Amino acid sequence: MARRLDLETYFQGIRQGDRVIVSRAITLCESSRLEDRELASALLERCRPFTGQSIRLGITGSPGVGKSTFINRFGMELISLDHNVAVLAIDPSSSRSKGSILGDKTRMDLLAHHPQAYVRPSPSAGTLGGVAARTREAIRICEAAGYSWIIVETVGVGQSETDVRNLVDIFMLLLLPNAGDDLQGIKKGIMEMADLLVVNKADGPSLDAANRTKALYSQALRLFPVQEFGLKPGVLLASGLEGKGLSGIVSSLNEIKNHAIGNHTWEKRRKNQDLTWYEDAIREGLTERFLKVEKTHRQYESLKQEVISGATAPATAAAKLLNSL
Amino acid sequence: MARRLDLETYFQGIRQGDRVIVSRAITLCESSRLEDRELASALLERCRPFTGQSIRLGITGSPGVGKSTFINRFGMELISLDHNVAVLAIDPSSSRSKGSILGDKTRMDLLAHHPQAYVRPSPSAGTLGGVAARTREAIRICEAAGYSWIIVETVGVGQSETDVRNLVDIFMLLLLPNAGDDLQGIKKGIMEMADLLVVNKADGPSLDAANRTKALYSQALRLFPVQEFGLKPGVLLASGLEGKGLSGIVSSLNEIKNHAIGNHTWEKRRKNQDLTWYEDAIREGLTERFLKVEKTHRQYESLKQEVISGATAPATAAAKLLNSL
Repeated sequence: MARRLDLETYFQGIRQGDRVIVSRAITLCESSRLEDRELASALLERCRPFTGQSIRLGITGSPGVGKSTFINRFGMELISLDHNVAVLAIDPSSSRSKGSILGDKTRMDLLAHHPQAYVRPSPSAGTLGGVAARTREAIRICEAAGYSWIIVETVGVGQSETDVRNLVDIFMLLLLPNAGDDLQGIKKGIMEMADLLVVNKADGPSLDAANRTKALYSQALRLFPVQEFGLKPGVLLASGLEGKGLSGIVSSLNEIKNHAIGNHTWEKRRKNQDLTWYEDAIREGLTERFLKVEKTHRQYESLKQEVISGATAPATAAAKLLNSL
Repeated sequence: MARRLDLETYFQGIRQGDRVIVSRAITLCESSRLEDRELASALLERCRPFTGQSIRLGITGSPGVGKSTFINRFGMELISLDHNVAVLAIDPSSSRSKGSILGDKTRMDLLAHHPQAYVRPSPSAGTLGGVAARTREAIRICEAAGYSWIIVETVGVGQSETDVRNLVDIFMLLLLPNAGDDLQGIKKGIMEMADLLVVNKADGPSLDAANRTKALYSQALRLFPVQEFGLKPGVLLASGLEGKGLSGIVSSLNEIKNHAIGNHTWEKRRKNQDLTWYEDAIREGLTERFLKVEKTHRQYESLKQEVISGATAPATAAAKLLNSL
């Protein structure tokens, strides 16, 4: 890791939109070294008055749905409307050393080379406090750097979607044009989290299938409860490959935003996210401090094995561990 | 509260299926007094070899869907098949002093007076460690008392459904026969948690509507991913009022169980629930011990207000609190 800068150098660089400094600031936030954490915390406080103005958009979908191609073109659409776009990837399975920096930038080549865009690869899975906590901070850094749309991309792995749902304003699910097949590979619970569904790859020979998919999902969504914003999620068609349907999606997202701002649910969701963040940070911090002691950690692992084997009841195992306090 | 018994008196009473002792044991588990917690913990360990053999069934649905009437008749159906049935209610909004004991027993009169059934009202909202933790323990007490079906009923309030999903083997959602209307009042995420959907009130003039509802939901569920057991949730019709469709539901639930046992997902879900229980108990125990100190608790509340007002960032507030350790 590059040598640390001082607080003001980070801050001024971020405010000037210097992407090298933005990257280094996010790397700082991802560090688990105590002195880095302290500096990161001070930097986030310094940036705080300049955060909150962006649209934070979560995008998910099964592998093969064409997320990268879609985000690449969708980001360019936003730029054509004079927005600055940051893309943050969350992939719990990725590891920095496996070359995901190159991977993420290659698969979003238009954005990666555009001066109004910033593409940040996934932090490594071992990041302190979890990928979600670090992404929350990366969002704030990007906002302070002037990005007006922050896209958080998640692959359909692990708990990442639920985490991302708690980080963003609007959550969008990409679907394949194959309704009724069992091939969507969408995880349980994702569909009901989505504020907007987009059938991607609505192009060429798949256009008919895409239309059928749209009709089926539109009907199914009628049976769903309304979302937090008081809206029923819509279904739109798009082609990341051909760049079609993108302006309609931008309009839809803006309508969702305006509706939610109008009925104050936009602000409410963000406040709830802040409270969750506060509570999570306390719980995680306590657990981390507790398990940091090597002896405690060993006991934690050994009791965990006893729970798995059925030798000890979960509550008894937890009580044993806590009594060693 | 009645005077405490000794461990063996509780245990023998439970094993003999003495419902008065079962009730007192559950009350003991709900107590927040330290000496009660210790006795409860010892009792649960003593009961442990006699637990795990029941089908733990979660039932939810909006207010007005007829849950009590349904459970009353459904429980009698199980009894007619020579099962013993325990019903545990989870209602975060209820408070013991408001007379929910009488309420629960009145609305399930057939079960409440049958020797092979046990109806337990909701623990009060202020119960230590949360209603979920106490319900987990109540399930074990009922299993040790020989109940072969444990029904956990939840009202559509707060986070109770998600909690209940983590306590039970099978989760069943009751629907009203009014598909397509916005009146179901089902909360986001519930539909995708369900292993089985039942359209209740499929009787009299509502029968047509119930059939249409069934058809619509069946089609919508085709678009959903399979559940943990590797099954797509089905949709059945029932009338709690007329006692119709109940044997079909029992068969369906048994099929789900047999399928899940066959592919080992039944055991896997229970093991995962145990691990979640262990981790939750550690986190809750730590937070509880931490916030038990009055000064810490005051600081926690005051920082929480700062987070809500936006004066302090969530992570900063959490760090401030943790640094007071």
